[in-house]
Amino acid sequence: MISKPTLFIDERKCRENIHKMYSKAQIHSLVFRPHFKTHQSLEIGKWFKEIGIRKIAVSSVTMADYFSSDWNDITIAFPVNLLEINRINDLAKRITLNLSIENEESILFLSKRVKFQINAFLKIDVGYHRTGIDSSNTVLINKILAIIDTNPLISFKGFLGHAGHTYKCKTPEEVKQVHGAAMEIMGGLKAKYLERYPELIISLGDTPSCSVAEDFSGVDEIRPGNFVFYDLTQNKLGSNSISQIAVALACPIVAIHKSRSEIVVYGGGVHFSKDRLEDKEGIVFGRVAENTEYGWGELIPDMYVKSLSQEHGIVSVPIEHIEQYDIGDYLMILPVHSCMTGNLMKSYTTFEGRNISRLS
Amino acid sequence: MISKPTLFIDERKCRENIHKMYSKAQIHSLVFRPHFKTHQSLEIGKWFKEIGIRKIAVSSVTMADYFSSDWNDITIAFPVNLLEINRINDLAKRITLNLSIENEESILFLSKRVKFQINAFLKIDVGYHRTGIDSSNTVLINKILAIIDTNPLISFKGFLGHAGHTYKCKTPEEVKQVHGAAMEIMGGLKAKYLERYPELIISLGDTPSCSVAEDFSGVDEIRPGNFVFYDLTQNKLGSNSISQIAVALACPIVAIHKSRSEIVVYGGGVHFSKDRLEDKEGIVFGRVAENTEYGWGELIPDMYVKSLSQEHGIVSVPIEHIEQYDIGDYLMILPVHSCMTGNLMKSYTTFEGRNISRLS
Repeated sequence: MISKPTLFIDERKCRENIHKMYSKAQIHSLVFRPHFKTHQSLEIGKWFKEIGIRKIAVSSVTMADYFSSDWNDITIAFPVNLLEINRINDLAKRITLNLSIENEESILFLSKRVKFQINAFLKIDVGYHRTGIDSSNTVLINKILAIIDTNPLISFKGFLGHAGHTYKCKTPEEVKQVHGAAMEIMGGLKAKYLERYPELIISLGDTPSCSVAEDFSGVDEIRPGNFVFYDLTQNKLGSNSISQIAVALACPIVAIHKSRSEIVVYGGGVHFSKDRLEDKEGIVFGRVAENTEYGWGELIPDMYVKSLSQEHGIVSVPIEHIEQYDIGDYLMILPVHSCMTGNLMKSYTTFEGRNISRLS
Repeated sequence: MISKPTLFIDERKCRENIHKMYSKAQIHSLVFRPHFKTHQSLEIGKWFKEIGIRKIAVSSVTMADYFSSDWNDITIAFPVNLLEINRINDLAKRITLNLSIENEESILFLSKRVKFQINAFLKIDVGYHRTGIDSSNTVLINKILAIIDTNPLISFKGFLGHAGHTYKCKTPEEVKQVHGAAMEIMGGLKAKYLERYPELIISLGDTPSCSVAEDFSGVDEIRPGNFVFYDLTQNKLGSNSISQIAVALACPIVAIHKSRSEIVVYGGGVHFSKDRLEDKEGIVFGRVAENTEYGWGELIPDMYVKSLSQEHGIVSVPIEHIEQYDIGDYLMILPVHSCMTGNLMKSYTTFEGRNISRLS
């Protein structure tokens, strides 16, 4: 029984998303290292394990620690936070830990302070310009590699990139172009360093690229994350159909304003997050799907969350539909950004009413 | 010792904010019913209690339940969620519970289902157009009052409004205008209904209005919330000085990109929230204050968070300052919206290293 905002998960859709991406990785002979920052759940992690996946990526030491009870090959795809060296050592003692290096300071620090075997990826800026080394900066790359090569506890694993600027694309073709440019940058590095490091790997993989691209030349490993749930942002980019979105927030209707054809739901920025999508209607914070006996169905055209405050959501309703809703009903709303919604809701509810916990 | 994003509270500033707003309420002979949705902490609540405050507002049944161990007069300033009737009855049994009514359906439902004494505020739309009854809709107001009057368990308490559109203002003068218009609407209702209900009260009070206005004619009670911490959004509106902001997020520096004069911090949308401010630089997600021996000091001019992803924050740094930072330092960052940042961080750390818990 729903009484307040509740994040539902469609287990079947979620497992299908996992299976589909894994199959794609296998077809292209890629190592599949899913990023677990979206679901952050040991239980959902087991759905990956059941089909044979053994390696994961996360974006914090805290997440690595949480998943280390079940997973023993974890990449922290985030610049090394020197202030967490004790927790890094604790992890390195227990699991295969792969860190992401993008500057000399971090590798010098690690070189002095690391007590157990670690693997180092060099984080390369593939055009997103958030983090990473410019691929043409061979001086810095060689400096870092020289430090790694002199430390028996640190092994060079390869080059890691994240084409996060695919999220700014408007079409699958644009996503493919960004992905192509990232592959070219990484391919150049691979060609340059493969002789010296015959086992080096190239790790790429934002969800948009992994969803729409069919060319993974030179790539050895992919690390998509969001695909496990997908969301409206990914749908707009062309990564997924609406029917692949595996989470929806059930929100009680607390007021109906027929004069402006709006519904007020209990469900605000503390449930959805304030992540927004610019679409044909203007700014959109969520879209309403049909309630079905067992979950949710198709999107209701032109019915969307137009604004959010802390606890309130304002839903714009087509005037011809407003009469069919009552206070005390609930709406099933698909999120703009499932990573952020999951992070706020802190657990998932299955259609059977079971609670799936996550890192909180 | 800071090792990951940590939300610090300056207890002195926070207590001063509380004291200042309480004094203002007393000067204007207003009942002070602070809204606790910003801090959501029993311990911070005690700072209000210590100076004699006895009534509070919250925005969910869950919050009312959390605070009911310490507070016995609580207004839920959110449309009644019929799906939580059992929890509402449980609260009504234990404390003085004031609910916010804005439609006939809710009051009819409550009238049938409420088992203990409750007070009802009629929520009036004072121009924000999020929720509330149009003040000119006397037919609806009278219908609701008639239902209330026939039920001995429900007492009419007064009219409640929230001028949330003050957040769209650009100057204190605009805030005062919005507040003035809200007072006029409420004043009209008071004049119309005071004879019939001689004890009715007018409850108003968003933080911008309560901070900048000096006229509270006809208002009986104020319910500001954000003032307890304040933030950059309120500062831009003119509600507070930067030195009154009582929370700051300490974020470890994990990368420095001198070529684009940017610092990457561990601190992203899951810590700050994605709430944004449009300011002279464009979109701003936080501003950096000086680290001091005991907390934080003045803002560093032109040093601000320019973008946020899930765990990363990108800080734009004046080129002449970039050399003074090292990886492994941390930055003290003032939030755009302290309600949302508090909600994500789930606890506060004092300068003495003590943890202050909140509803999680």
